[in-house]
Amino acid sequence: MAKTYKTIDVIGTSSKGFADAAKNAIEEAGKSIKAMGWFEVDTIGGRIDNGTVSEYQAKVRIGFRLLSPEELKNA
Amino acid sequence: MAKTYKTIDVIGTSSKGFADAAKNAIEEAGKSIKAMGWFEVDTIGGRIDNGTVSEYQAKVRIGFRLLSPEELKNA
Amino acid sequence: MAKTYKTIDVIGTSSKGFADAAKNAIEEAGKSIKAMGWFEVDTIGGRIDNGTVSEYQAKVRIGFRLLSPEELKNA
Amino acid sequence: MAKTYKTIDVIGTSSKGFADAAKNAIEEAGKSIKAMGWFEVDTIGGRIDNGTVSEYQAKVRIGFRLLSPEELKNA
Amino acid sequence: MAKTYKTIDVIGTSSKGFADAAKNAIEEAGKSIKAMGWFEVDTIGGRIDNGTVSEYQAKVRIGFRLLSPEELKNA
Amino acid sequence: MAKTYKTIDVIGTSSKGFADAAKNAIEEAGKSIKAMGWFEVDTIGGRIDNGTVSEYQAKVRIGFRLLSPEELKNA
Amino acid sequence: MAKTYKTIDVIGTSSKGFADAAKNAIEEAGKSIKAMGWFEVDTIGGRIDNGTVSEYQAKVRIGFRLLSPEELKNA
Amino acid sequence: MAKTYKTIDVIGTSSKGFADAAKNAIEEAGKSIKAMGWFEVDTIGGRIDNGTVSEYQAKVRIGFRLLSPEELKNA
Amino acid sequence: MAKTYKTIDVIGTSSKGFADAAKNAIEEAGKSIKAMGWFEVDTIGGRIDNGTVSEYQAKVRIGFRLLSPEELKNA
Amino acid sequence: MAKTYKTIDVIGTSSKGFADAAKNAIEEAGKSIKAMGWFEVDTIGGRIDNGTVSEYQAKVRIGFRLLSPEELKNA
Amino acid sequence: MAKTYKTIDVIGTSSKGFADAAKNAIEEAGKSIKAMGWFEVDTIGGRIDNGTVSEYQAKVRIGFRLLSPEELKNA
Amino acid sequence: MAKTYKTIDVIGTSSKGFADAAKNAIEEAGKSIKAMGWFEVDTIGGRIDNGTVSEYQAKVRIGFRLLSPEELKNA
Repeated sequence: MAKTYKTIDVIGTSSKGFADAAKNAIEEAGKSIKAMGWFEVDTIGGRIDNGTVSEYQAKVRIGFRLLSPEELKNA
Repeated sequence: MAKTYKTIDVIGTSSKGFADAAKNAIEEAGKSIKAMGWFEVDTIGGRIDNGTVSEYQAKVRIGFRLLSPEELKNA
Repeated sequence: MAKTYKTIDVIGTSSKGFADAAKNAIEEAGKSIKAMGWFEVDTIGGRIDNGTVSEYQAKVRIGFRLLSPEELKNA
Repeated sequence: MAKTYKTIDVIGTSSKGFADAAKNAIEEAGKSIKAMGWFEVDTIGGRIDNGTVSEYQAKVRIGFRLLSPEELKNA
Repeated sequence: MAKTYKTIDVIGTSSKGFADAAKNAIEEAGKSIKAMGWFEVDTIGGRIDNGTVSEYQAKVRIGFRLLSPEELKNA
Repeated sequence: MAKTYKTIDVIGTSSKGFADAAKNAIEEAGKSIKAMGWFEVDTIGGRIDNGTVSEYQAKVRIGFRLLSPEELKNA
Repeated sequence: MAKTYKTIDVIGTSSKGFADAAKNAIEEAGKSIKAMGWFEVDTIGGRIDNGTVSEYQAKVRIGFRLLSPEELKNA
Repeated sequence: MAKTYKTIDVIGTSSKGFADAAKNAIEEAGKSIKAMGWFEVDTIGGRIDNGTVSEYQAKVRIGFRLLSPEELKNA
Repeated sequence: MAKTYKTIDVIGTSSKGFADAAKNAIEEAGKSIKAMGWFEVDTIGGRIDNGTVSEYQAKVRIGFRLLSPEELKNA
Repeated sequence: MAKTYKTIDVIGTSSKGFADAAKNAIEEAGKSIKAMGWFEVDTIGGRIDNGTVSEYQAKVRIGFRLLSPEELKNA
Repeated sequence: MAKTYKTIDVIGTSSKGFADAAKNAIEEAGKSIKAMGWFEVDTIGGRIDNGTVSEYQAKVRIGFRLLSPEELKNA
Repeated sequence: MAKTYKTIDVIGTSSKGFADAAKNAIEEAGKSIKAMGWFEVDTIGGRIDNGTVSEYQAKVRIGFRLLSPEELKNA
């Protein structure tokens, strides 16, 4: 059977930077998704409080493979 | 824990206009999603019958916060 | 024969809002086009006079089916 | 002298719809800008509270003519 | 009740071509989604092995109608 | 006289694939347009029925040269 | 009656430059279109022969007002 | 009165990375702007000297609320 | 202190061509802005009267460095 | 050492379809490039002669790994 | 053998205007590339010194045919 | 002679973050390219293994000046 993938859009946040915000989003998504394989960052930005950055944000598109029933059984 | 958000794409319809189509999509999505916080309209358009607009459509990207297990228990 | 569609770009205006501007464009286009089926709004904007909106504009891409000679005869 | 124009980006809000949000942004901008002539809507979206739209937003790019010193004197 | 639609992003693969990759993605998605109605191809591409194409890929956005509770009961 | 070209947007359909859908659109457009020279595919997609692709679609932008009155007389 | 506008896409050519290519396209289009009011340049480019530019091209989107039957009678 | 926001485009630089470049731009803008609330990164890039990165750059769009005369008095 | 830049959007006009329209916008902006360093042309277009171009327009994004208080004192 | 990739843009042609045009471009590029790994299709289109498609074209962005001196020696 | 084309991105400069900047880029590229056939202008812009344009720039994508070994031998 | 620049697209990887991935790409490209002057980041993303980021990626467009024969001789 030909492989099939799905992508979802998740926004992570961090006080450190964009790479950490992306990583947080991915690790949070990984709690309910198996077989994640790659991500693309769609937009980056953040919140500002008292004249400086209070939160970095990264909107990431996460790609993962749709598992077959057999794979799901053995997962 | 850093906050994480998810976005989904929903298309609402209305006989009144684009704002109403967006609102319909959001209210329908709200039947199964908690903690919706914002939306962006991706595209607007509609159907034409007998030479006039028969349906306005708004494709909206809805953003909502992923709740923690504790929040879900108390929701 | 496979169906074929054509799109044209029309800009409608209105004093009421964007949905009305789109509807005006479509109804005006309908005076010379048959079989219009859908529209997508490309851009919205307008004119400003004396510090407020004097005209809403919607640039709509209208899709319609190219009729066969038989259909045109019976139209 | 050749005419010169400037554009600025303003975001208006409304409880009624996108056209009203755009109009609010323009009227607010008009308190400090003279000679506004047109606007383009860049993005539309809004806030969600309790499962429905609590605020419509329109990000508008407003175009206005740069007045000459003579015009400013007589304004 | 106004109709509401949802779109999801799925990536199909094929050894034959882009149309077949799109079809594979749609048929795989159809195993868990009812009432799919249309698709748009977002990007096409693929993998290369030993200097030639080893896999065609099509990222498709699939649109489907959200069924009412009554429709779901009778599905 | 400098050459001038025009483009129009046509959507073709096919049960076979995207290339065939583009070809169908072009051949249909050719019934009323002379001197077509090139095409660009703007978007591809299609309809889904019963969980599989029922129609491939290709939106093509067709470019053709505007003929001079002399050329039109001899065409 | 609210004003309605239409846009068409035309490609002009010139041996001098992009502004001249755009002007040529517009003047050629003006042979069959009344009430042209503005243009936007979509893309610019050209042909190369013997290592230098042999033709500049400008793809222009021309906007014109749809005349009412009364205006057409008096045109 | 409905809230109104404005956005401006600022480019920050840093020897450390993109997040730091964005933060520098925001803190610099904060010297003359009150009530900044969010930012979006438009583009990232930088300068190269002697074969390595000598400066990271982030072009950020900063959003801030337009204060009412009362708020400005009390600021 | 890390350098910071700002960009503004200005539209220049000319009867000669796009390069001249851009230059006019920049020279006009230079009457109130110091330390301009580069520009990007966002869109080009113009007005049409009597079937030919009556005005070329260039929308330019002008980049300039934000001067420090010391630099401003000595400017 | 961290892996580095490069992409180049190649346009393939075919009388059969878009997938074949992409494959032709990749196989031709493979005559001088080692370690090609993936491709993305940027645009598709073609030439028209005598009212039908005479050539399908696919502009593909080909990604390949930059080999280390050791790998190149053993290739 | 099906024809194959390649594109490269080059930025030309000129004190005269955008068309001249594009031509300069193409003539410079022609010193090492044979069989150039067309170009597309990706972006235009420039440098500013002392409040006016000191250099026009055009980023051009140049397309050229990949020659077969026979053609290269006879070139 | 007017200066001419070229851009190439390179993808760097890093276990640390996006800025480091861009820097790696640039330093690797610098092994064969002289006179690199600036870079723009086109896309950022990465690979995921075991539910977290295993590799950050940055696709960078690197700009460099084409050296004259004299400069190359003295390089």
